[in-house]
Amino acid sequence: MLHSVIMAGGIGARFWPISRRRKPKQLLDLLGEGSLMEQTMERIAPLVPPERRWIVTSRPQVEMIRSVTADLRENRFIVEPMGRNTAPAIGLSAVHLLHSDPDAVMIVLPADHRIQDLAAFRECLRKAVEMTEQSERLATIGITPTRPETGYGYIQTDRTAKELAPGVWRVKTFAEKPNAATAKLFLESGEFLWNSGIFVWRADVIMRQLAEFQPKWYGGFQEIAQALGTPDEDEVTRRVFSVLKGISIDYAVMEYAPQVVVVQGTFDWSDVGSWDEIWRLLPRDADGNATRGTARLVQSKNNMVLAKEQMIALVGVEDLIVVDAGDAILICPRNQSQRVRAIVDELEKRNEEPYL
Amino acid sequence: MLHSVIMAGGIGARFWPISRRRKPKQLLDLLGEGSLMEQTMERIAPLVPPERRWIVTSRPQVEMIRSVTADLRENRFIVEPMGRNTAPAIGLSAVHLLHSDPDAVMIVLPADHRIQDLAAFRECLRKAVEMTEQSERLATIGITPTRPETGYGYIQTDRTAKELAPGVWRVKTFAEKPNAATAKLFLESGEFLWNSGIFVWRADVIMRQLAEFQPKWYGGFQEIAQALGTPDEDEVTRRVFSVLKGISIDYAVMEYAPQVVVVQGTFDWSDVGSWDEIWRLLPRDADGNATRGTARLVQSKNNMVLAKEQMIALVGVEDLIVVDAGDAILICPRNQSQRVRAIVDELEKRNEEPYL
Repeated sequence: MLHSVIMAGGIGARFWPISRRRKPKQLLDLLGEGSLMEQTMERIAPLVPPERRWIVTSRPQVEMIRSVTADLRENRFIVEPMGRNTAPAIGLSAVHLLHSDPDAVMIVLPADHRIQDLAAFRECLRKAVEMTEQSERLATIGITPTRPETGYGYIQTDRTAKELAPGVWRVKTFAEKPNAATAKLFLESGEFLWNSGIFVWRADVIMRQLAEFQPKWYGGFQEIAQALGTPDEDEVTRRVFSVLKGISIDYAVMEYAPQVVVVQGTFDWSDVGSWDEIWRLLPRDADGNATRGTARLVQSKNNMVLAKEQMIALVGVEDLIVVDAGDAILICPRNQSQRVRAIVDELEKRNEEPYL
Repeated sequence: MLHSVIMAGGIGARFWPISRRRKPKQLLDLLGEGSLMEQTMERIAPLVPPERRWIVTSRPQVEMIRSVTADLRENRFIVEPMGRNTAPAIGLSAVHLLHSDPDAVMIVLPADHRIQDLAAFRECLRKAVEMTEQSERLATIGITPTRPETGYGYIQTDRTAKELAPGVWRVKTFAEKPNAATAKLFLESGEFLWNSGIFVWRADVIMRQLAEFQPKWYGGFQEIAQALGTPDEDEVTRRVFSVLKGISIDYAVMEYAPQVVVVQGTFDWSDVGSWDEIWRLLPRDADGNATRGTARLVQSKNNMVLAKEQMIALVGVEDLIVVDAGDAILICPRNQSQRVRAIVDELEKRNEEPYL
C-alpha cells in the first residue's frame, strides 16, 4: 500500500534569526502562507490516508510539529535519535514501514518545499507510483528548470534510451550544484532536470539497495527491525544510528543503483533554501524591494526587509537582506545568503544559547 | 573684550536615527567622549570668562542645552526665532555683543566639531585674536588638510603676498566641496586649507561688512539693536529674521570682504559631518569594523554597527553603516551617509512624528 514519509529533521540554519532550535525552518511561516510543514502535509493528504502518513524527525521536533499542525495529529512519527542526513533517515523509515506493511510503497518528501500547482504535483507522484509499485525501480522527481540555477543539484536524463512513459526517463547521471556557466549549459541542453529530493519506491527495494551499496549498514537495520515494538527499540535505534555515516540518499544509493528513473515534474517548485529565495518568492514593488512591517526605503533597490517592532530605514542600499527577529537582526547581501549558517556556527562556538 | 559665540542651531539630520528634533546632533555623545556641545564649551572656556560666553540657538534648544551642560549654565543665550543659516545668526550675535560691549571681539565657532589638540587650537585662536582685535580684518581658521577630502570646503591662501605672521595668510579664494580629482590637486598644491567655519573678528567690523555686502539687512539689524532689552525684542527679532535669506557667512560676506585672512591651524579637526566620519573616528578592529553594543560580524569588513538592545549580525557585508536607535534602525552604505537626511525628508513628508 502507498505510504508517505515526510523528512523533517533539520533546523534550517540559513533562516536564522527567524529559525531557531525551537523554531525549525519547516515550522515557520516564511511566506505568509502557513508553515512549509503544513503545506507539505496538505499537499500529500489526498494521496495517502492518515494512518499511512509518516513523519521522520528528531525527538524534540515531534512535539513542535504536533503543536503547529493541530488538524493533522494522526500522523505517525518515526524518531531519529540524532540527525544523520537522508540515507539513514530513509533506511530507518523503510524498516518501520516494512514492519507494518511488507508491501509498502514509499513517497519520500522533504518538509520544507514550496509547490503551488498541486494537481500537477499529485499527477507526477501518481505516475511515479505506477512506475515503482511492482518493480525494482527507484523513482526520483525531476523538476523542469526555468533558470540556470546554481543552488540546486541536477539530474541528467538518458536520451539514448526512449521514455519509459511520457515524462519518465532513465537517469544518466546526478550532477552536483553547477557553476554559472555549467548551469547555463544544463538549461540549454534540455536534458537536465532539477533534483527535487522527492522519491518514490517500494520499501523492500530501497532496503535491499541500501544493503547492497552500504553493506555495513545491513546488520544494523536488521537489529532495529527486530527491536521494533520491544522495550529495546529506542536503545537499539540509538546505538545503530550513532555509527552510521551522515550521507545523502543520492550519494548512498541513487548514484549506483541500476534502475533509477526520473519522473519529470512540470509544476513550480522551490526548496526555499535561503533568504534570497524568499526575496524571489515574495511580492516586490517597482524598485524590486520586498518588505514586511514598518520599512522605509529611500533610493534603494532589490532589497528584502522583514521588520518587526522597530522601523527599519534604508538609504542608498541595493541587494541587501535585513531580517528582524525581535531579539536579533540579520544583515546580509542577497547573493551571500547561502552563508547565513556561518553566523549560527559563530554563535554556537560562543555558546550564545539565547540566539540559537 | 573677547567673547565667544557658539552656533548651535541645527538638528543634524544626517545623524538620524540618533539625532531627533529633541536630540540635536551637538547634544549627542556620538563618540563616547561626551556631547560635542560640552566639548566645544570646554575647549573655549580657558580663553573667555563665563559672562562673555554666548550660545546662539533656537528657543527649543535653549532648555535642551541647559539640561545636558549642567556645569556651564552661566552661558548667555541668543535666541534665533527660526533657523536661517550662519549669516543671520552671526549678524544677530554681533548685535547682541555690541549692545553689551561696543569693543567686542568675537570668536565664532560651531557647536559640533571635534578637536583633540586643545593647546594648538587655543594658540591658533590667540593668533587670530591678535590679527583682528585692532583691525578691520576678518579671520577664518583654516585646517592643514591630511587627505583629499571631498566633504569639506577649502580656502586657497594667497602665496603671491608674504605671510602676515607665521601661519597667517591673505585669502585668495574660497572653494566649494571639490570632486575627488580636484581635492587631490588641492592637497598636492600645499596652498589649500580646509574651511573650518571658525571665525574671529571685531563685532563692529562684521556688522559693517554685513551692511556693505547685504545692504538690505542693515535696517533690520538696526531695528533689533534698538529693541534689545525692551518688551518688543522678541517680536522685532522674529519679524526681521523671518525675511532674511538663509545663507552662510562665507557666501554673505567672506567671499567679498577685502581684508580676509586665514590662520592656519595644525590641530586635528573634524566637523563630524556624517556617520561615515564617525566610523573614521571610532576605534576599529583588524577587519576595519567599528562596533558598539552586541554586534556579531562574520566575513564582514569596514562596517560600523551601533547596536542597542538587539543583537545585530552581519554576514558577508562590507562598507555598511548600521545604527539602532531603539525605535528605528538606519542601514546605509558608508559612502552614501551624506544622504541620510533623505530619510528624514521622507519621514517629514509622511508626518511620522514619532521618528522625527
